[in-house]
Order: sequence, then C-alpha cells, then structure tokens
Amino acid sequence: MLLMNHKFLLAARPVGLPKHNDWTYVEEPIGDPKEGEFLIQLLYISLDPAMRGWINEGRSYVPPVGIGEVMRALGVGIVTASRNPRFAVGDHVSGSFGMQEYAISDGQRVMKVDPKVAPLPKYLSVLGMTGMTAYFGLLDTGKPKAGETVVVSAAAGAVGAPVGQIAKIQGCRVVGIAGGPEKCRYIVQDLGFDAAIDYKSEDVRTALQKHCPDGIQVYFDNVGGTILEAALANLARGARIVICGAISQYNNTGPMTGPRNYMSLLVNRASMKGMLVFDYADRFAQAGAQMAEWMAAGKLKSREHIVEGLATFPETLLKLFTGENEGKLMLKVV
Amino acid sequence: MLLMNHKFLLAARPVGLPKHNDWTYVEEPIGDPKEGEFLIQLLYISLDPAMRGWINEGRSYVPPVGIGEVMRALGVGIVTASRNPRFAVGDHVSGSFGMQEYAISDGQRVMKVDPKVAPLPKYLSVLGMTGMTAYFGLLDTGKPKAGETVVVSAAAGAVGAPVGQIAKIQGCRVVGIAGGPEKCRYIVQDLGFDAAIDYKSEDVRTALQKHCPDGIQVYFDNVGGTILEAALANLARGARIVICGAISQYNNTGPMTGPRNYMSLLVNRASMKGMLVFDYADRFAQAGAQMAEWMAAGKLKSREHIVEGLATFPETLLKLFTGENEGKLMLKVV
Repeated sequence: MLLMNHKFLLAARPVGLPKHNDWTYVEEPIGDPKEGEFLIQLLYISLDPAMRGWINEGRSYVPPVGIGEVMRALGVGIVTASRNPRFAVGDHVSGSFGMQEYAISDGQRVMKVDPKVAPLPKYLSVLGMTGMTAYFGLLDTGKPKAGETVVVSAAAGAVGAPVGQIAKIQGCRVVGIAGGPEKCRYIVQDLGFDAAIDYKSEDVRTALQKHCPDGIQVYFDNVGGTILEAALANLARGARIVICGAISQYNNTGPMTGPRNYMSLLVNRASMKGMLVFDYADRFAQAGAQMAEWMAAGKLKSREHIVEGLATFPETLLKLFTGENEGKLMLKVV
Repeated sequence: MLLMNHKFLLAARPVGLPKHNDWTYVEEPIGDPKEGEFLIQLLYISLDPAMRGWINEGRSYVPPVGIGEVMRALGVGIVTASRNPRFAVGDHVSGSFGMQEYAISDGQRVMKVDPKVAPLPKYLSVLGMTGMTAYFGLLDTGKPKAGETVVVSAAAGAVGAPVGQIAKIQGCRVVGIAGGPEKCRYIVQDLGFDAAIDYKSEDVRTALQKHCPDGIQVYFDNVGGTILEAALANLARGARIVICGAISQYNNTGPMTGPRNYMSLLVNRASMKGMLVFDYADRFAQAGAQMAEWMAAGKLKSREHIVEGLATFPETLLKLFTGENEGKLMLKVV
C-alpha cells in the first residue's frame, strides 16, 4: 500500500517576500523505511524567519535549499513505522523533517520529546530552537549581570519573549521593543518586562534614551536596520550586542543596510557578536531541563500561534514578516 | 619679558575635509607657570586621524574641541621652567599639549621620556599612543594565537605597521592592506609581512580570498567602508574584528556607511569589538618596555614622516586623509 505524502518544494529563489509561485506543492508516494530508518508523521511544523535565509543563494551557515528540494523546516511528529532500534512506533520526535506530512529519518540529529512533560507545540517554541537560541544567545553571548539593563527587539516573538524573561530571572532590568499596543501590553503585563517600546508608534532612539538613562548593557538584536542603530546610539560603556537575526532586512531586494553608527562600538568599548544555536547542541538537554523548571515555576511563559493545515504554508510564512503572528508561529499538520 | 606663543585654534567645525579657514593661527604671550605647574617648549607634535573626530560636535569618548579653543594634540617637548618638583628644567616630556609652541601643564597625564633610550619622534609613534593602540588592540582585543591569519588595514600606517609586526612576533601569518606599491613593498620587504594587498589597484575582497584561503581569524580595522566589508566577507569561524578606526569615513559629509554584510558575524560566530587606548594607561609603561625590547632586537621597526614647522599644520593634516604620509605623521616645531 502506497502512503501518499504532500510537500512543498522550493520552485524559485524569491526576490523580496516569498510569493506563491516560489513554491510547488506536490503529492508523491513515500517509500518504506530501510534498515536503520523510521517513518515520521509530522504533527506540527515550525515557521521561522531563518527560513528566508535558507532559500537564498550563496554561502551561509548551512547550504541553501536547492531548487526542486523539499523546503527545510523543523517539526515534531510521531513515529509510525521503524527499522531503527532507538526509535519505536509511537515515539514523539523533533528534528529537521521538512515542509511535508511524512518524513523518513535515520535518527541523526533527531531528539525524542515527551508530551507528558509539555504540550508538543512547546517543543517547537520555548523548549525548541527558539528557546535554546534565547537561552544561549543571552547567557553565553550577552553575559548579563544582575542589575544590568537588557534590551531585546522583536520582544514578543519566539526568541525575544524568552530572552526578556530569562534576563528577568538573572535579575536584570528588561526593556522590550515590539510592534503595536497588544504586544507591548503582553510583554509587560503577562511576561513581566519592565518597559515596552512600540516601534510602530514611538521613535525608538528617543524611547531607549528615556527607558535606559544609563545606557544599554546588553542588546539582543533580532531585527537589524534602524532599531539596531537606535540601540547602538544608546550603549553603555562595555555593552554587548548579540546578533541573532535581522528580520527587517531579510526581504530586501537590494543589499542589506549596515549599522551606520557602528563606531559607537569604539566610543563605548562595546562588542557585537554573532551566535548560532546549533553550536550548543551538546548542551540542549541541560538547557531544556532548566527551561522546563522555569516554566513549571511560572517564571517562563510562552504562547504559540498555531495555523491549521500544511497547505497554508506560503501565506502563513508571510505573517512572520508582517509581524501578524502572536507567539511562535507553526503549522498544525494533523 | 613676555614669551610669545603661536597656536592653532579651532575656528569652525569642518564639513568634510578640514579647510584652511576652519583654523585660526594666533600669536599670544604665554604666562608664567604657577605653583605646581611647568612650562613646556614643544619639539614634535603628533598628527592623528582621531583629530578629525575631536573637532566634530557631539558625544564621543572625549568632549569635542570647542570653537576658539586650542586644537588638541599629543606632543613631545622639553621643560624650560618649572614650579613642580616632579618636573625639572631640561626634562623631556610627552602629553596632550595642544597645537602650539609652548604649553603650561600641572603634570597630570604627562610622562617623562628619555631621548637616550629612543629618538624623541619614536615617543609619538611606536613608543607613543599609536604603538600602544597597536599593542593593546591586537593583543587584548584581537587575541591572536600562533598560526592564525591576521589582516590589518592601513598597514603601512602608524598603527597598522606595529600591529602587523607584533602579530608576526606572536607567530601569526600577516596580510596587510595598504595604498600603492611603495607601501606594499615596505610592509613585506622591510617589516616582514607575509603578503600585501594594494587597495588602490586590487579588488580587496578577491585578494583577501586568495591570501586567506581558510579565512581571516583576526581583522584589525583602521579604515571602515568597503575594506571592512571585504574583510567581513572573508572571516573564518570565530573571527575577531578589532574596531580601531574608520579613516575612510571621517570626512563624509553625509552619514557614515555601516558594514552592509555585518550578518557575517552571525554566519561565522564572529565578533566586532571597539577599543580605546586610553583604557590601558596603567599598562603603558610595561608595554613600552616590551616594545623597546622588540625594537632593540630588530623585530619592530617604525618610520616617521616629519614635516617642519607648526604653521604647516592645516595642510600637513590632510596628508593623513590622502594617504600621502609614509609613516607616523608629525610636525617638528623647533
């Protein structure tokens, strides 16, 4: 009996925002797992800003998705057939399974997840890559100390929200930059940030000056562009900038904009450092346990924005770039 | 008897390259030193790219030179009268004495220098601020390890030349970027750099790719602009960029250009960090002794470009921005 799979292939390299015809939606039978392999039925698939970089030509931290290849995506699923002794039918797993209903894996870089510890969507948010990015980006790269002022952009997002909460747990003052009154309310009232700046209605540079009168010690950047420049203009001596993303620039059709006032790094003896979560894979289990403990204690909250249906992928992805999503964006496949 | 002093005052904040009428040259009697003070006759005065920043309005690491104030400048001179027990007539001293023939000082931040250890101009170059900048910028911020590839821009300049030689002493491979065949010949043949790139006749990005096939581990930036972008495009994993200057941008009439490909910091888990030599004042003596030892051993060479006459200051300063100077630029006052 042939099992039919549906999947999204990359049809063309997008110019600017990815359009419908940059993708091909195909139906194709999926084979049986070979010795050492197992079959996964996807339940939730993560949508991430990083996807925009994965479909560009050229050198990056991973090879680009090739034209005609299934779109790269992280997901959570259930094992439905197995010829691998480490993975049994009924196990829940997370990994890079692609934008499709079914995947075959040899188990490399696949983690088991336990729906009794946390609902499955949490393994694509606060207990998944975005949560790990927040944890290691803030603690290992930003190195905040109690009493310092931490600023994070895209603060209501899947990385920004845990960054701010972990900074609060470390005893920092936390200012979040987010778009619109609802997100600003959320990070202050629900997540306990000290202040929020609405970049859609406020001048971020002036607002940072007001909320950080002694300057910013740690700035966690998810957005780039003018908000990065506003942070650079308000650094404290010895500040650390964590470069995690630049979502404001990902759909540029021309070159990206570099921070014109980067010489603030010299004036303030500050640093700007890039991080990639994959470098910390050997510490994910330990960090996940810590994050789960903070969740249980009510100190670390998250919300997921779940859209039903694999077929909605091309439109749903765009929510990330308009900022329409409220919480970690993902698809519910089944 | 009144001693007449000649000095340059800042007349106006320059737009672009400083022009003749941005300065006022005045003759004025200088008073006698009061209790605790001493009188210095300037012998050599340092001309530095940083001067361009000091005459801009606005917040930086030091307050700007005010309109009508004597231009800030480092110099070496001889004490000709003293009411300070720590400084005797005939002592040679270095400090921030201004663009003038005579200065009165209370001894704060003034160092004695010994013309028997090294000729006086060396105390404004390799044994002065530019040498200290190279020493601490490279070793403390760049942290090169033996076998790594170090790239430095403005490599024949007063900071770049010692950076490259100190990197060689540390066992690194060193590639210098300089303007024109003579400077390129100088850094390779006279200073022992492994390779030189002539930014005036080569595509720096391509040349870096050729000379650093495994990427750049430490990039020491004195220039900013497209050369910084070329270095960012060729980083090795874990690279460190030292932000020391951005001379290509100092005379912009519009905003500076930020490095458009700064996301290379993320791709390569690299850092970009600013440094200011003044933070290391308590270690200058120790570093100076080390530098003098390397000089004596023939491992650290320097050349000084000495122009006669205080009155030439407005024209001579411009040599820094056209790259006409060969070695550390300074004025000989007497």
